[in-house]
Amino acid sequence: MPYYGYFNGAIQPVDQIGVGITDLGLLRGYGLFDYFLTYNGRPFQWDLYWARFEKSAGRMNLPLPLTKEQTYPILLDLLARSGEPNVAFRFIMTGGYAPDSISIVTPNLLMLSEPIHPVPEWQYERGIQVILDDYVRETAEVKTTDYKRVMLLHGAIQAAGAQDVLYHKDGEISELSRSNVFLVMGNRLVTPNRNILYGVTRRTILDLARDDFQIEERPVLLSELYEASEVFTTSTNKKVLPIVRIGNLPIADGQVGPVSKQLLARFMAFTGR
Amino acid sequence: MPYYGYFNGAIQPVDQIGVGITDLGLLRGYGLFDYFLTYNGRPFQWDLYWARFEKSAGRMNLPLPLTKEQTYPILLDLLARSGEPNVAFRFIMTGGYAPDSISIVTPNLLMLSEPIHPVPEWQYERGIQVILDDYVRETAEVKTTDYKRVMLLHGAIQAAGAQDVLYHKDGEISELSRSNVFLVMGNRLVTPNRNILYGVTRRTILDLARDDFQIEERPVLLSELYEASEVFTTSTNKKVLPIVRIGNLPIADGQVGPVSKQLLARFMAFTGR
Repeated sequence: MPYYGYFNGAIQPVDQIGVGITDLGLLRGYGLFDYFLTYNGRPFQWDLYWARFEKSAGRMNLPLPLTKEQTYPILLDLLARSGEPNVAFRFIMTGGYAPDSISIVTPNLLMLSEPIHPVPEWQYERGIQVILDDYVRETAEVKTTDYKRVMLLHGAIQAAGAQDVLYHKDGEISELSRSNVFLVMGNRLVTPNRNILYGVTRRTILDLARDDFQIEERPVLLSELYEASEVFTTSTNKKVLPIVRIGNLPIADGQVGPVSKQLLARFMAFTGR
Repeated sequence: MPYYGYFNGAIQPVDQIGVGITDLGLLRGYGLFDYFLTYNGRPFQWDLYWARFEKSAGRMNLPLPLTKEQTYPILLDLLARSGEPNVAFRFIMTGGYAPDSISIVTPNLLMLSEPIHPVPEWQYERGIQVILDDYVRETAEVKTTDYKRVMLLHGAIQAAGAQDVLYHKDGEISELSRSNVFLVMGNRLVTPNRNILYGVTRRTILDLARDDFQIEERPVLLSELYEASEVFTTSTNKKVLPIVRIGNLPIADGQVGPVSKQLLARFMAFTGR
C-alpha cells in the first residue's frame, strides 16, 4: 500500500503531495522537522517528540496549526493506511507560502509516514567510522532542515570509507551530523551538553544507564576521545550504534565494546521489541 | 496574465507548480538560487548571473541540467508569457528528490518569472536603518537558500524601526542579509572582500566608480563605520540604497549623501532605464 501524508488539512498518498514554489522552506531554508518511529504500532515516546517539535516551532516563531491531541489520531490514521505494522513519521513545518518570498504568513505543516530504513546489521557488529569536521551547527538545539554541511561532506566521507562525520570546534566535540555522541570512560558515560540537538534517544539512554554508570553531561574535548574505551552514537534510527574509528584514531582496540552492546539491548527491551 | 515557471522541463503557471515532498531543498535545506531582473525586455547582466549560478552549482556538487544557451530562450519565453515588459527571474536548484531523504540523485531546477517588487521610493530619499548582528554566513560566497538568520531577526528589525541587518564578526563587517555594503570615505570607496556573496550589482558599482574613486576591496572593520561619510548597500533589487543609521550610530549627519545618489543615477543610466 502507498504511504500517506497529511499536508495542511488533507491526507493524500505521499507521492501526490506537491508543495508550492513560494514555500519558505524551499526558498529560504526556513523549516524545521522531526522524525520518530512506531514500535508495536504506537508512536514511540510521542510525548517527548511532540514536546521537542513544539519547542523547535516556538524558537522559529512558527505557530503550530494543530494541538498534540489533534495530531495523534492523524498519525494513527496514516499508520493504518500504510498497511505496515510500523512506520517512520516525518514532520516538516516551514515558514509557509510567501508572496513576497521572505515574510511568514501561515506555516505549512507536513506529516508524512515513511518506510523505516534500518541501519545495516554489519554496522552494529563491526561499528562505524566517522571523519572529523571543524564545524558547529547554527542553532543546533533546534531541529531545523539545515543539513547542507553533511551533504557537502558526502564525498569526503565516502573517500575515507566512513559513514558519518563528528563535528568539533575549538577543541570541543558536539555531535554527528544527525545523532548524538557518547564516550565510555571506565564506569563513566560522558556526552556533550552544548551545541547539540537534544536527542530523545540520547535522553532515553541516559535514563536507562543512570543506575549503572556515572553520567557526565558536560563540554567534551576532542582529546578525550584518546581516553575513551568505547564511543557510540544515538539517534531515533541508529538507536545505539558503536563508533570504532574517528578520523585516523581507532577507539581503544578498534572493536565494538560491551557497553555499546549492553545499552543497545537495554534500549531495544525498552521499546518493547 | 499569470507568471510562468520552468520546472524540470515543463513550463506552467507558477501557481500550478508543485514540488514533491522528498525534495532535498525542502527536507535538508540543500538548495541554491539566483535572482535577476530584465530591463528593456532583456535579462540584465545575464552573463554574470549565469556564471555565478554555475559556480554556486559547482560548489554544491549539483550538475546543471541545462546549458546557458538552452536556458536563455526559456527566459525569453517566460518573459513573453508574463505579458509584462519586465520581470524578475528566480532560479532555484535543489538536491532533487531523495527516496532516502538524504542522497542526491538528480537536482530539481526551477526557473520562475515574478513581478518586480521595487524598493519603496522613500527609502532612497531618506535612507534605511539597519541593526547589527554578530554573525557570518556559512559559505557566504555561494548563493544558497539559507536565510534562517534574517528571518529569525525579523522581530528585532521591526522593533528597532529598521529595514535590514548588517552582519559582523570578530570586529569585521561582511554584508547585509541579502545585499553588499559600501563605505564612502572621502574619495575612497571601501567594501568588504570576504565572507560575502559577490554581488553582480556590487561588481557593477565598482566598475562604474573606478574612474572617480579610489577603490578598496578589503576586510572592513566595524569601527570604520564611524569614519564613513556615507554608507550604502547594493543588490539586484535595491540597486544603490543609502544606509543612514547602523545600530545606534547615525552615519555622518544621518542624511542621504551625494555619492550614493550619484552612483544610483550612474547605475540606472547603465541599465538603459
